[in-house]
Amino acid sequence: MLLGPQSSRTNCLPKLASRSTSSENGHVHLLNDAARGIRGERVPVWFMRQAGRSLPEYRKLRENTNMLDACLTPELAAEITMQPVRRHGVDGAVFFSDIVIPLKIAGIDVDIKPGVGPVFGRPVQSAADITELTSHTLEDSPEIREAIGICVQELDVPVLGFGGAPFTLAAYMVEGRPSRDHLGARALMHADPASWDRLMTWAADITGRFLEIQIEAGASVVQLFDSWAGSLSVADYESKVLPYSKLALERATVPTIHFGTGTSLFLEQMASCADVLGVDYRMPLDEVARRVPGKPLQGNIDPALLAAPWSVLEEHIDAVLAAGRAAPSHILNLGHGVPPTTDPDVLTRIVSYVKQTL
Amino acid sequence: MLLGPQSSRTNCLPKLASRSTSSENGHVHLLNDAARGIRGERVPVWFMRQAGRSLPEYRKLRENTNMLDACLTPELAAEITMQPVRRHGVDGAVFFSDIVIPLKIAGIDVDIKPGVGPVFGRPVQSAADITELTSHTLEDSPEIREAIGICVQELDVPVLGFGGAPFTLAAYMVEGRPSRDHLGARALMHADPASWDRLMTWAADITGRFLEIQIEAGASVVQLFDSWAGSLSVADYESKVLPYSKLALERATVPTIHFGTGTSLFLEQMASCADVLGVDYRMPLDEVARRVPGKPLQGNIDPALLAAPWSVLEEHIDAVLAAGRAAPSHILNLGHGVPPTTDPDVLTRIVSYVKQTL
Repeated sequence: MLLGPQSSRTNCLPKLASRSTSSENGHVHLLNDAARGIRGERVPVWFMRQAGRSLPEYRKLRENTNMLDACLTPELAAEITMQPVRRHGVDGAVFFSDIVIPLKIAGIDVDIKPGVGPVFGRPVQSAADITELTSHTLEDSPEIREAIGICVQELDVPVLGFGGAPFTLAAYMVEGRPSRDHLGARALMHADPASWDRLMTWAADITGRFLEIQIEAGASVVQLFDSWAGSLSVADYESKVLPYSKLALERATVPTIHFGTGTSLFLEQMASCADVLGVDYRMPLDEVARRVPGKPLQGNIDPALLAAPWSVLEEHIDAVLAAGRAAPSHILNLGHGVPPTTDPDVLTRIVSYVKQTL
Repeated sequence: MLLGPQSSRTNCLPKLASRSTSSENGHVHLLNDAARGIRGERVPVWFMRQAGRSLPEYRKLRENTNMLDACLTPELAAEITMQPVRRHGVDGAVFFSDIVIPLKIAGIDVDIKPGVGPVFGRPVQSAADITELTSHTLEDSPEIREAIGICVQELDVPVLGFGGAPFTLAAYMVEGRPSRDHLGARALMHADPASWDRLMTWAADITGRFLEIQIEAGASVVQLFDSWAGSLSVADYESKVLPYSKLALERATVPTIHFGTGTSLFLEQMASCADVLGVDYRMPLDEVARRVPGKPLQGNIDPALLAAPWSVLEEHIDAVLAAGRAAPSHILNLGHGVPPTTDPDVLTRIVSYVKQTL
């Protein structure tokens, strides 16, 4: 009976299958069902950016490895993906990667600078730059396939794949780095609509292919992140951005989640091209449900409240769960990514709390 | 006849009074009238951040002077305030200052780091910090009075005063510097509501006093900027932020403008405590007018389009002007501050264009 040693490994490398035999796959499909609009015995829960900076075991693993190298080392990416599942007991394992990984694999000169974000060697600022850019394609990625394969084999919860929405990728590529207002990209879409179309069609293709590879490797839900869409006007979103997000999402053969922040002006449009609408923390889910009736919702605990006393956070979670009942199904999540300074025990406690709240 | 030399000084230091005699104060009150809901012979125009980084004459003046020192040197602040009026012929001179200036005058340890923004020597993170902070008060500022006095005397367009909304000030002070999600401030409002109330009441008092001083010195319209309010949920904005913005705005005895970015979820609330609602570029003005009927509106040329070809920008300006007709009165402005990289000639051309569009 190796219970002792195995138990002592609970926080490092146990096989999850051995931990959850009591539930006998009982919650394995909660997340996939909810993504299809089916309400199960309880609300499933996972956290955007659950794999990563908030976990000490992640910081230790990443000590001597650059971010993009970590994403492209299958065992490492798989291990980081699985860490929060083991620690928190979440209902889904979002693949540890980065939205610029498909660009990197396609040979674009991009790196992630700590404390800054993605930085491109050659920002895309002219029609010629776009011609050069679009000569790069993403054929396949054995690294991604292998990493996801490990997770699918080791975990008894679904693996979520993801990709960056074309606008968010384009905003980074045009500016060459993170920016606040994405003026360059937002100017280009009007100053040179033909170039914009080429850039966005290419971005939709590459991120769509990234989703496909993850799905082929076993991801059973995928999420498209449009992190910067909140900088857009409604008119620009509709005519210059949404069609390309659709192109990318159409490639997915599993349920899709579409998420942005500060996008309350065009939730209906975002919901129109995915199975689930991911909602940030700015609007209560019942109000969102009134705007997109019949749509499964994901969200929307305010990450700021992770630093508040538990009683305050608990009351907030109750309100989120209650509001989520207005949707046909609800996947509990934060309304934005886990802040790096989050106490991981708070996330674990949220999962336990939700599992008690049948 | 000194026409020659005088004309050659047009771009440096002419008295505007001498330039606009032909209109004999004809447009002097356009902005003040529009702020009171009175539609004049044409739409008045000014630009948020018109005084500052986009102007070469500003960059030259600032070469050897730190930002906050420039704000507190009356002749310099006045000169910088007047530069865009001379160059562009805008209908209002927004006072060159910074939202942290009242804090600086009150003795708070704050500086503006180039490329970063306001940085505080001692971030406000505990009840004790708030007690220390609130021991600082803003009594008066001869520097502000003198600078505005010069502008009022020299210009024949109204001077606009301004201040930062309490939440935006609090977000800076709690984080100690600019941040993306203002998690610290947004956690504090829930974790320690009593401290939040003290902090926000103090911030409302100091920024309200800053508005008062500017008004007493001759500012005839004031604008409250809530730059970071877009990070808030509707519920938090209503209960934890709006009451304090009201407190600050109530101190003004001239027409008030209330502006935020990404605040479409609570435009009605923002409009409720000011004479004019400043609108960012994300929503057309006619839609905003339907939500806040009878409210004068300011806005909302997309700053990204300043970098587009003139034909594209002109079409956009036409659309903004047309949509603005849905409001009782309209002050044309950008939907955010002038980007530092803006070609100043584009701003001048916008003003000329609007002046032709009677």
